[in-house]
Amino acid sequence: MAKPKKTPRPKAQTPKGFRDYFGTEVTHRAEMLSKIAAVYHRYGFDALESSGVETVEALGKFLPDVDRPNEGVFAWQEDSEGDKPGDWLALRYDLTAPLARVYAQHRNDLPMPYRRYAMGPVWRNEKPGPGRFRQFYQCDADTVGAPSVAADAEICAMLADCLEEVGIARGDYVVRVNNRKVLDGAIQVALYGDELTARNDGNHVQNLLDTFVDDIRMSVSEQAHTQILRTIDKFDKVGFVGVSQLLTTGRKDESGAFIEGVGLSTSSAEKVLEFLHARKISNEHTLAALDNLVGQTSIGRQGVDELREIADLLAAQGYGPDRIAIDPSVVRGLGYYTGPVFEAELTFEIKDEKGRARNFGSVAGGGRYDDLVKRFTGQEVPATGVSIGVDRLLAALAAKGRLETEATGPVVVTVMDRDRMADYQAMVAELRQAGIRAEVYLGNPKNFGNQMKYADKRQSPVVVIEGGDEKDRGVVQIKDMVLGAQLAQEASHDEWKERPNQYEVPRADLIKAVRDILDRAS
Amino acid sequence: MAKPKKTPRPKAQTPKGFRDYFGTEVTHRAEMLSKIAAVYHRYGFDALESSGVETVEALGKFLPDVDRPNEGVFAWQEDSEGDKPGDWLALRYDLTAPLARVYAQHRNDLPMPYRRYAMGPVWRNEKPGPGRFRQFYQCDADTVGAPSVAADAEICAMLADCLEEVGIARGDYVVRVNNRKVLDGAIQVALYGDELTARNDGNHVQNLLDTFVDDIRMSVSEQAHTQILRTIDKFDKVGFVGVSQLLTTGRKDESGAFIEGVGLSTSSAEKVLEFLHARKISNEHTLAALDNLVGQTSIGRQGVDELREIADLLAAQGYGPDRIAIDPSVVRGLGYYTGPVFEAELTFEIKDEKGRARNFGSVAGGGRYDDLVKRFTGQEVPATGVSIGVDRLLAALAAKGRLETEATGPVVVTVMDRDRMADYQAMVAELRQAGIRAEVYLGNPKNFGNQMKYADKRQSPVVVIEGGDEKDRGVVQIKDMVLGAQLAQEASHDEWKERPNQYEVPRADLIKAVRDILDRAS
Repeated sequence: MAKPKKTPRPKAQTPKGFRDYFGTEVTHRAEMLSKIAAVYHRYGFDALESSGVETVEALGKFLPDVDRPNEGVFAWQEDSEGDKPGDWLALRYDLTAPLARVYAQHRNDLPMPYRRYAMGPVWRNEKPGPGRFRQFYQCDADTVGAPSVAADAEICAMLADCLEEVGIARGDYVVRVNNRKVLDGAIQVALYGDELTARNDGNHVQNLLDTFVDDIRMSVSEQAHTQILRTIDKFDKVGFVGVSQLLTTGRKDESGAFIEGVGLSTSSAEKVLEFLHARKISNEHTLAALDNLVGQTSIGRQGVDELREIADLLAAQGYGPDRIAIDPSVVRGLGYYTGPVFEAELTFEIKDEKGRARNFGSVAGGGRYDDLVKRFTGQEVPATGVSIGVDRLLAALAAKGRLETEATGPVVVTVMDRDRMADYQAMVAELRQAGIRAEVYLGNPKNFGNQMKYADKRQSPVVVIEGGDEKDRGVVQIKDMVLGAQLAQEASHDEWKERPNQYEVPRADLIKAVRDILDRAS
Repeated sequence: MAKPKKTPRPKAQTPKGFRDYFGTEVTHRAEMLSKIAAVYHRYGFDALESSGVETVEALGKFLPDVDRPNEGVFAWQEDSEGDKPGDWLALRYDLTAPLARVYAQHRNDLPMPYRRYAMGPVWRNEKPGPGRFRQFYQCDADTVGAPSVAADAEICAMLADCLEEVGIARGDYVVRVNNRKVLDGAIQVALYGDELTARNDGNHVQNLLDTFVDDIRMSVSEQAHTQILRTIDKFDKVGFVGVSQLLTTGRKDESGAFIEGVGLSTSSAEKVLEFLHARKISNEHTLAALDNLVGQTSIGRQGVDELREIADLLAAQGYGPDRIAIDPSVVRGLGYYTGPVFEAELTFEIKDEKGRARNFGSVAGGGRYDDLVKRFTGQEVPATGVSIGVDRLLAALAAKGRLETEATGPVVVTVMDRDRMADYQAMVAELRQAGIRAEVYLGNPKNFGNQMKYADKRQSPVVVIEGGDEKDRGVVQIKDMVLGAQLAQEASHDEWKERPNQYEVPRADLIKAVRDILDRAS
């Protein structure tokens, strides 16, 4: 018989932009998700889990900050059935688009308003980079069908509670709140400020003006509007000088590339900068400054009123500007937001990959979006929500050294005599029944050194040894690996040297002896 | 300006074969996963989470029981980069294939043996049916690099512990264990039994025979071997008579379709039936019967020895045949297993969709597979593991009424005066700080009836009402919804009627009054 042709071996590689998570990377995330879920639940939100796969049609082309439609998602076509071409399916890119689909599909059975939380992986078909992966976790809570900004305020409070619950201390974060309507007002003022001042002598004129401004925006200046919004969004990165250059004649970025300016007049750009300066020491002062700057437009005034209501509601629940602050520079990208927007920022510094101190930045964000469900039903359904970037939050806690890292390895029972495997298994069964993590070494037991190396690699706190001699005398050897590691590190301390890190105990005292070491180590 | 063409609205539909999970469906699963993870962890297994996406190359074409290669997975091609065609990617169809990839990729950094658990969704591109979905959860534990059957025994014990931990009572399940080597022996005996008996007068002859048998199997009878295995796998469904028909001349199934037989002689089929009869009252008796039936083949004898070792190890840890039983009918499909195989079966009856009582059947399974890593590295790496079908297990617990279903809705604070939203929010903030799930009604508050309907739909235990009058008098109205529901149901009981289900308490006693009701209800 001819030998079958040898096919090359497959490569053992994650696809580009994906990664594996091991041990505590997984359990820390699970613990964080469970803590956040508990807060969401306490606030009255119910769990929802939709599948990772949606039809492209239902998902829509809503991926924020992506210009080309359908870009950024993993999609494929189902097999055709007879003459009918298969549906296009895709992996969800966030948890908000599926929520809109779920709400539209099940709205007759769901309570109104519908408050739900969801957590799980999402996928983005983007160019991966350092720390940027194509699968990552989101953890969202949204209220669908609540027009009042009380819903937005509540979500900001909940976001602050979540951050504290997972271990971000008060003072190490701030939830910054803005309103797209205030931003719209600011842009109107920048673009048409002079006309506004000239004509603003009564509501009638204001109404006429709004129509006029809307018309202009639609026909002429939609592009300028978007460009100004995009520039304000860059404020955290480029500061006042950068924004002023970008609004007017343009700017060289760090790499030396020239970014063209929006082309505003100096006086128009000045108005935007004044707006960005409006964040004051208290929410009240910020609101007064904003009112002064954008209150002359009806959209801006409405936005300021909403922000004031949010600030009042939060103050009534004890959330001051140290935790939740009105901040006119918050934009939240070019997404679908229509009202209040918010963002949680960690305020402590961490070292970046080059050892430079930098602010950790944003770990969560959200806002009000009123058009997502309308796509399906034709009816406008007000909605607001937040998305917590769990992976970034974990990175922040790790950078601050706030994730538990103590050795949680199992007690390892070594195999001295492979014919007595049943004895060793009975030992670990006893340990496990006492709630102690334990296992028998299941590799090839011939080389005892390998067994000890294994216990080291697993960060075992205790190794148990029972050879024939110990068996005969009814004892077991207990090796305290925690103390052993300390002895190795601090060998000069005489006091340590006197404590033996291996000793024998009666077999009947196994559980007690192991528990003593575990208690000392924790 | 011409009106833009109206595009049809997208359909709000999950893709075929996918579904949404709401509320307790999500939290019950999360609780189950976390309980199973705790058992896996106690046994010394470490968490691993790989991504949902793998290269098709790494995933391989290992989907069990699927004949056509690449069938059964969701796959798509990446965009090409310049001249280089994009990789084919796919959603994982189980957690074992990714484990093989992870182990091969990271083997220099991983402990040896590597004990890992993993949980998460997997996807199958199959025709959906009632209760069959294209995304479902698996929850696996595997030991890679442990040649000893002590590893298999341990996993059987762990599986029993997991089932009890999630609420399956002892006596309501059995872990059935078999060995592919015993099955191979039984098939050899069925196919070549007469020659074996004639020639079996010494080891030398046995060795010659094994070569001969292997040669025959490879060249002539591979197909018969597979067919007999497949038939044994159907034993649970078709019983002794069905198996005997399928092994010989064929059989009409329930739908009336004729299934062709394997074509064995009556005496050969008889040997397979004797084998299936070999499960006895104790593991010892079963092993003796098996030894008698297949011990004349060297592969069969090896398999029986392994099973005996497993039974001894389990007995030493206190797992008797009421929990873990040797059962020769276990096959585990046509997958990649090479040694011990096992399956957890729930032994209680449930009603099916037509109201007929039937056994619930298998909820978990696994076994030893020694070839998966070899695909990548060329080296054979022994591995064994188990996969728990979490969704089936949840369905079983639900069918037995063993999932908590008490009302866990939030306390709802109604909005009597929309200008006093801050007061209401302060109330829920107090409740939440006391650890009580609570929310303010955030829909349109105009219609009080809608607020009460909402509270009903959310299964709220308590509704809090504070109108202007109550505010002035420093009180709140407390409506006990749990008692209210009881009153509505049992209106004839006079004793109930005397208990008011709505009363007022001082505002300062809000928390205490709510907690009293919650304590009574739980």
